[in-house]
Amino acid sequence: MTPVDPVALAADLIRCPSVTPAEGGALVLLERLLSQAGFACTRVDRNGTPNLFARWGQKGAARSFGFNGHTDVVPVGDTAAWTCDPFGGQISDGWLWGRGATDMKSGVAAFVAAAVDFVRETPPDGAVILTLTGDEEGDATDGTVALLDWMDAQGESMSVCLVGEPTCPDRLGEMMKIGRRGSMTAFFTAQGVQGHSAYPHRAKNPVAAMARLIDRLASHPLDQGTAHFDASTLAVTTIDTGNPATNVIPALCRATVNIRFNDLHTGASLTEWLRAEAATVQADTGVQIAMTAKISGESFLTPPGALSNLIARAVEAETGLRPEPSTSGGTSDARFVRAHCPVVEFGLVGRTMHQVDERVDVAQIPALKAIYRRILTDYFA
Amino acid sequence: MTPVDPVALAADLIRCPSVTPAEGGALVLLERLLSQAGFACTRVDRNGTPNLFARWGQKGAARSFGFNGHTDVVPVGDTAAWTCDPFGGQISDGWLWGRGATDMKSGVAAFVAAAVDFVRETPPDGAVILTLTGDEEGDATDGTVALLDWMDAQGESMSVCLVGEPTCPDRLGEMMKIGRRGSMTAFFTAQGVQGHSAYPHRAKNPVAAMARLIDRLASHPLDQGTAHFDASTLAVTTIDTGNPATNVIPALCRATVNIRFNDLHTGASLTEWLRAEAATVQADTGVQIAMTAKISGESFLTPPGALSNLIARAVEAETGLRPEPSTSGGTSDARFVRAHCPVVEFGLVGRTMHQVDERVDVAQIPALKAIYRRILTDYFA
Repeated sequence: MTPVDPVALAADLIRCPSVTPAEGGALVLLERLLSQAGFACTRVDRNGTPNLFARWGQKGAARSFGFNGHTDVVPVGDTAAWTCDPFGGQISDGWLWGRGATDMKSGVAAFVAAAVDFVRETPPDGAVILTLTGDEEGDATDGTVALLDWMDAQGESMSVCLVGEPTCPDRLGEMMKIGRRGSMTAFFTAQGVQGHSAYPHRAKNPVAAMARLIDRLASHPLDQGTAHFDASTLAVTTIDTGNPATNVIPALCRATVNIRFNDLHTGASLTEWLRAEAATVQADTGVQIAMTAKISGESFLTPPGALSNLIARAVEAETGLRPEPSTSGGTSDARFVRAHCPVVEFGLVGRTMHQVDERVDVAQIPALKAIYRRILTDYFA
Repeated sequence: MTPVDPVALAADLIRCPSVTPAEGGALVLLERLLSQAGFACTRVDRNGTPNLFARWGQKGAARSFGFNGHTDVVPVGDTAAWTCDPFGGQISDGWLWGRGATDMKSGVAAFVAAAVDFVRETPPDGAVILTLTGDEEGDATDGTVALLDWMDAQGESMSVCLVGEPTCPDRLGEMMKIGRRGSMTAFFTAQGVQGHSAYPHRAKNPVAAMARLIDRLASHPLDQGTAHFDASTLAVTTIDTGNPATNVIPALCRATVNIRFNDLHTGASLTEWLRAEAATVQADTGVQIAMTAKISGESFLTPPGALSNLIARAVEAETGLRPEPSTSGGTSDARFVRAHCPVVEFGLVGRTMHQVDERVDVAQIPALKAIYRRILTDYFA
């Protein structure tokens, strides 16, 4: 049996139109390949969301290395703006083109190819576990979470896990993610008393109150960063009133604020702070300010140690670059995996992810496969 | 010939559906009545807006007393919410009901009835001039302005003018208007740089910049009022962004601010202040803030003197109340008349103006007619 070609596999995956939440044939293709390679495969679909669990080796093995990834992709956007078919899997000018090329079908292809070759050529004393979901770009409520719930129920476990998301800003090898900031969104509604613009003292202006609240929040530095985290950030994303009448003070104004926070905060502590700020402005202005908060994920960290060192050594051996252990960026399914076992993310250069003409340097795919293969080798050595 | 019944005339005017800019038969009705009473009438329509000029007495008379008013009305709103037909002119429970009952068909009926009776019973040595427009509630660009332009061109003039708008908050007689605050509206557009909520340092957030600008403006007391004016006021009427994505910092945010200002300010001085505030926030944030300003009217004052004393004495003689000389409230066509001659406003209790079930205490209409009649008598005495 010949080694798995990760470029051909990535192109095959791109040809599966698996726009969230569609399966698009991607997990079916991977299940066939992995089953043939001796992996025990189980579809762990939940509420219509497709997920695939695959294990080589014994359940309950003392050492088991996990890979996590997703085969769903974000929508294409303006199809006419693409240079080539976003689901064509075309290779030209040294690029593999298509939606999912960087986020993250090439990453999935690289770790699947690495795992299949590894267990065939050098069967380890332990297990290799792949968790693959079709719901990372959507609500992510029935994706990796469903896989982990099912694993708990079945007594399946990973000792450590590597998430194959693109993590490198410019050059393959320069960055891995050892944690992520938390993310929460607060939705404010200011309810005042409508009135005539000529008599503002008879009204209670919710727009002015909201402007004050938002300026207070946006002007407040949350912290200066911590040992492994950048400073927390707050971004107001919208203020809306929808009042076309210049002679009317309206009754309602809404605003939304998004916070990315480090390990100095929790969703609960920030919720408390936001409520206190709203209460202060409410007391100053007489405008009622209500708030709902949605906490997408708490901050988390796999402290630098055995797993990150293992990965850093392998990356450096293959690329010459020592990957910076970062916690920057948005959210990923690592926020779920971290409750199960130590987790680190490492993958491709992500520059074109979610964009028109998403594409990956073809040479990076076998390079990434080689890194993943070396990580497996070193882990089980 | 019997005296004109101002209640019947007001009811007839209400039955004319003269929602801005429709003439609705109201000016036609008045022109017939005034022509029969010996007034020289001229329709001074401009750009489709109906206006009526009527003069009793000689053109160029040394003393001429003017009345100004409008026959157009604001829309009915929710017809189903009305107790009776808004164009029915119905009298019940001591009220005359209908759109325009207070603003200002009953006022027009009162001064037309007073003027007709006055010139017939006690022909004065001078002229009585009525300027009536069908465009006060709309843009007001071709209403009283067109009448005044035409009068200038024709060599017609008023020595003084009384605008018959409703001016009394609760009781007939308690308030007249000797001026009005100015009014202007500023429209701000903040143009930042779009980005991801997780990386606010790579974006320039126009929403945060706008919140800061609006809070600065709304927190700044413009003044403490002057001898004849209340304090100037600023009301933010809307802030809008329209960004539904909580992970995106948008590129644009808009806001509108309405200012009612006294004689310490002008439209130009306030425009300069607003631009300076926007420039400060722009310098602080790097967000471009553009502004356009619309000055609806400068503040004006007919200082207490002959005209206001004349009116105050007549009001007190008829009602027992000495009317307070106020400059409160929104705008009226007095802002145009003031460039032509001294102008004061006096009229009904305006409590239900622009509302569903607009109505007037029937007894107030002949009372107002008597006041207007006494003003004419005293003026020409």
